[in-house]
Amino acid sequence: MNGAQSLIRTLVKNRVDLCFMNPGTSEIHFVGALDHTPEMRGVPCLFEGVASGAADGYARMTGKPASTLLHLGPGLSNATANLHNACRARIPLVNIVGDHATFHRQYETPLASDVEALARPYSAWLRSAASAREVGKDCAEAILNARTGSGHIATLVLPADTAWNDGGEEGPVVTPPAPPLPEESRIEHSAGLLREGRAALILGGRLATGRTLETAGRIVAATGAKLLATFAFTRIGRGAGLPRIDRIAYVTDQAMAQLAEFERIVLVGAPPPIAFFGHPTKPSVLTKPGAEVFTLAEPDEDGDGAIVALAEALDATRVEPQRTPQIRPELPSGRIDLAGLGAVVGALLPEHAIVIDESVTSGRGMMGSTFGAPPHDWLVNTGGSIGIGIPLSVGAAVACPDRPVLCLEADGSGMYTLQALWTAAREGLAITIVLFANREYAILKGELASAIANPGRRALDMLEIGRPDLDWVSLAKGMGVPARRVETLDEFASALRHGFASRASNLIEVPL
Amino acid sequence: MNGAQSLIRTLVKNRVDLCFMNPGTSEIHFVGALDHTPEMRGVPCLFEGVASGAADGYARMTGKPASTLLHLGPGLSNATANLHNACRARIPLVNIVGDHATFHRQYETPLASDVEALARPYSAWLRSAASAREVGKDCAEAILNARTGSGHIATLVLPADTAWNDGGEEGPVVTPPAPPLPEESRIEHSAGLLREGRAALILGGRLATGRTLETAGRIVAATGAKLLATFAFTRIGRGAGLPRIDRIAYVTDQAMAQLAEFERIVLVGAPPPIAFFGHPTKPSVLTKPGAEVFTLAEPDEDGDGAIVALAEALDATRVEPQRTPQIRPELPSGRIDLAGLGAVVGALLPEHAIVIDESVTSGRGMMGSTFGAPPHDWLVNTGGSIGIGIPLSVGAAVACPDRPVLCLEADGSGMYTLQALWTAAREGLAITIVLFANREYAILKGELASAIANPGRRALDMLEIGRPDLDWVSLAKGMGVPARRVETLDEFASALRHGFASRASNLIEVPL
Repeated sequence: MNGAQSLIRTLVKNRVDLCFMNPGTSEIHFVGALDHTPEMRGVPCLFEGVASGAADGYARMTGKPASTLLHLGPGLSNATANLHNACRARIPLVNIVGDHATFHRQYETPLASDVEALARPYSAWLRSAASAREVGKDCAEAILNARTGSGHIATLVLPADTAWNDGGEEGPVVTPPAPPLPEESRIEHSAGLLREGRAALILGGRLATGRTLETAGRIVAATGAKLLATFAFTRIGRGAGLPRIDRIAYVTDQAMAQLAEFERIVLVGAPPPIAFFGHPTKPSVLTKPGAEVFTLAEPDEDGDGAIVALAEALDATRVEPQRTPQIRPELPSGRIDLAGLGAVVGALLPEHAIVIDESVTSGRGMMGSTFGAPPHDWLVNTGGSIGIGIPLSVGAAVACPDRPVLCLEADGSGMYTLQALWTAAREGLAITIVLFANREYAILKGELASAIANPGRRALDMLEIGRPDLDWVSLAKGMGVPARRVETLDEFASALRHGFASRASNLIEVPL
Repeated sequence: MNGAQSLIRTLVKNRVDLCFMNPGTSEIHFVGALDHTPEMRGVPCLFEGVASGAADGYARMTGKPASTLLHLGPGLSNATANLHNACRARIPLVNIVGDHATFHRQYETPLASDVEALARPYSAWLRSAASAREVGKDCAEAILNARTGSGHIATLVLPADTAWNDGGEEGPVVTPPAPPLPEESRIEHSAGLLREGRAALILGGRLATGRTLETAGRIVAATGAKLLATFAFTRIGRGAGLPRIDRIAYVTDQAMAQLAEFERIVLVGAPPPIAFFGHPTKPSVLTKPGAEVFTLAEPDEDGDGAIVALAEALDATRVEPQRTPQIRPELPSGRIDLAGLGAVVGALLPEHAIVIDESVTSGRGMMGSTFGAPPHDWLVNTGGSIGIGIPLSVGAAVACPDRPVLCLEADGSGMYTLQALWTAAREGLAITIVLFANREYAILKGELASAIANPGRRALDMLEIGRPDLDWVSLAKGMGVPARRVETLDEFASALRHGFASRASNLIEVPL
């Protein structure tokens, strides 16, 4: 058994049985080892940012890590923007990066790079395997660290000779330690804050789903507090019958207005509310001056347990949450506008859908219009590095092949990782991608207009992505994904229905 | 004058008047400042790897740096694979990366990252501006460092408030120090080695062009030494009438055979010949055991001056070099094969063409078939990070709008940065892209076959990029670049003629 074989066996025995990969020469023995371990599914990606974004989506939907396989420093670099997003969201991920053979590292060659330096900023655990014999053990440790707390990126650098040499040994099955429950005094203090009124309970990470969301709904029903999610959340369960949870707004003024009523804020696995960007004249801190912002549970603590304990402290475990009513918009007709597009999605979203939303400016109304749709999950960009939407959808669809996946994507952000469309086609995934084509970085035009009076043509030119217009029907077709462009809300509704009914990926371009 | 305006003015007064950019909110004041300084040309890119690759191509053709503008850690990360290539090639580049405002950095926000840690591995000079007043001075220092020696990446991190605050001051015009000439004893020793026979003179970087190539040609004519270029070279001037220079082969066995005759090797701005990858049974060092490998000039020393001094020491300054005869292949006809494709390119390549070659396996014969074509420049991937071909072509075409640019690209490598096609269309560049579509990572299939006996379907699947086949005609059309697919050598010749005559970018897909 060579090192690569021991690596794959160790992954598989720890239920890390998926690898999103873009290998090169130094990873070829890992590729070869796939033939020996059919339990490992390899998913090829034509760009490494697709692999890291897909691993993120997979982990968000399954709660367990996928692995990636990347080619030396440059492959890792291409994956890094979406690793940034995964790092911010504390996603478990086993990040495997090939490197030159240990004896070859001493030379100045074109692909020589300091892989560890490149991986360090996003890796909670990082090691370069020293020999084939160590690889299995190292891999087990990587998995353990990836799965500790709410999740981390663990990077294992794999010099080519540690993969090809014989003497590999399977690593052990690892069991991550249970995350610690916050101490009693923090639970008591949080309960006191919520009891006092004018309070918000903010959930971070993956806490706004399932039983934890349900229990949090009981807490706020019992106390009159408001239940909020961070703007950059990992996954929210929402829709008819689920407790209501509101997202903190992106725009600083809106977020401040939203938070102005709260004197007391309890954070569970969430950072304090801070503006996405600093601003010359606006504060960075979004909460009301003087408000008490208290952390009940850090992200690596047991947020689920903390919510249960908090409900018990508040005697709220049997209180009925305020549930979202089933309300769907009427299916609209006629000319395309943002409100109409939102209404179509709200009217047609199927039960158990997974919505990946990276529609930036065009999709801001989408959460409002789908509020009372049948229960579904909503996933967004967690680190502000755009270009995660389609890869995240690939990962979610691999994780949940029986659930409809809707990707709300913008032309600007979609272009960063459009190569994900090919993987969607290759793997036979059923993703419906709605591509909002406003032909500009609209969010930046807004920022420019607010920063500078009367911006001129030379500045505006940098933010317009038309001339030539991107033709997403052709781009999708070029990667084997059938696509159509819609000109009316009626056509959009028809295309969306068709998309949800389809067993294959499909793209709908919506010119705005 | 705010910090951003002082930055752009300092760039322009130092003749860094081009910026390949993909800005975000934190860079919006830089964008706004474009209106105030019309001498600065902004070139928008839809992915940051296009910006860094284009800046590389621009610098290779002009000898002076372009600037980039990138959005925080993630934008920098997306640019990094091509920064790796530029770093390996010692390309001058002023790399500007926005960051959060200094007062906002303390908070945990989605886009928070350690920009300096991400930039350090590839930056010879790195600084984060401390205030608007410092930006101009910092920028001048960045330019100075970018232009020192053979060229470096200088990264200036620009926190948003150092761009938007008033109090900016233009930095000075800087003059890089002349690179030092190697000491006399090294010139003498090199001359002695070449005189002894069984010797090779290996040029690195941009030395294999113009007068330096000419002088090197005189040296080898006088001594009987052989003139070689590293496999990963920056730019070679070649074609009819120019001194002959051979590239060291990629394949280890071929490179070793090529170098086996040499007892003495003189390096000028080039690293010693080392295998691209380490191998289980083959040596890393490609030169004959016992051969003397001597460095006449390090890359940051004056390689041009060293070659002149060497010619003088050898009394070779008036020796006539062996010149490449004008030999073009006959224009072939009929079925497509690699030899035929090479012959078509060799038969039709126009004078003064700039050829960017990232065709990997499909284009290995191209240098042979164009050997005796009219004088032209040849540029290749310098760092092994694939996905530089089309961006490099964009940069070269911006630098040399009157020269025909031919990009030889493969489907695998082209996919990493296909967004460059849009910039080619937007900027009205005349690039002819020949896209070899073999629908596999052919080079990796070769590696797999040599590493593992009888690889199975699960392994091979990871290296095949068909199913669905990429349709490059649609992909190009989707970004505003007209394209056609050719099925015969006759169609290829017709398309290539049409492409060279065109004033716009165009793509020719060649299925293999």
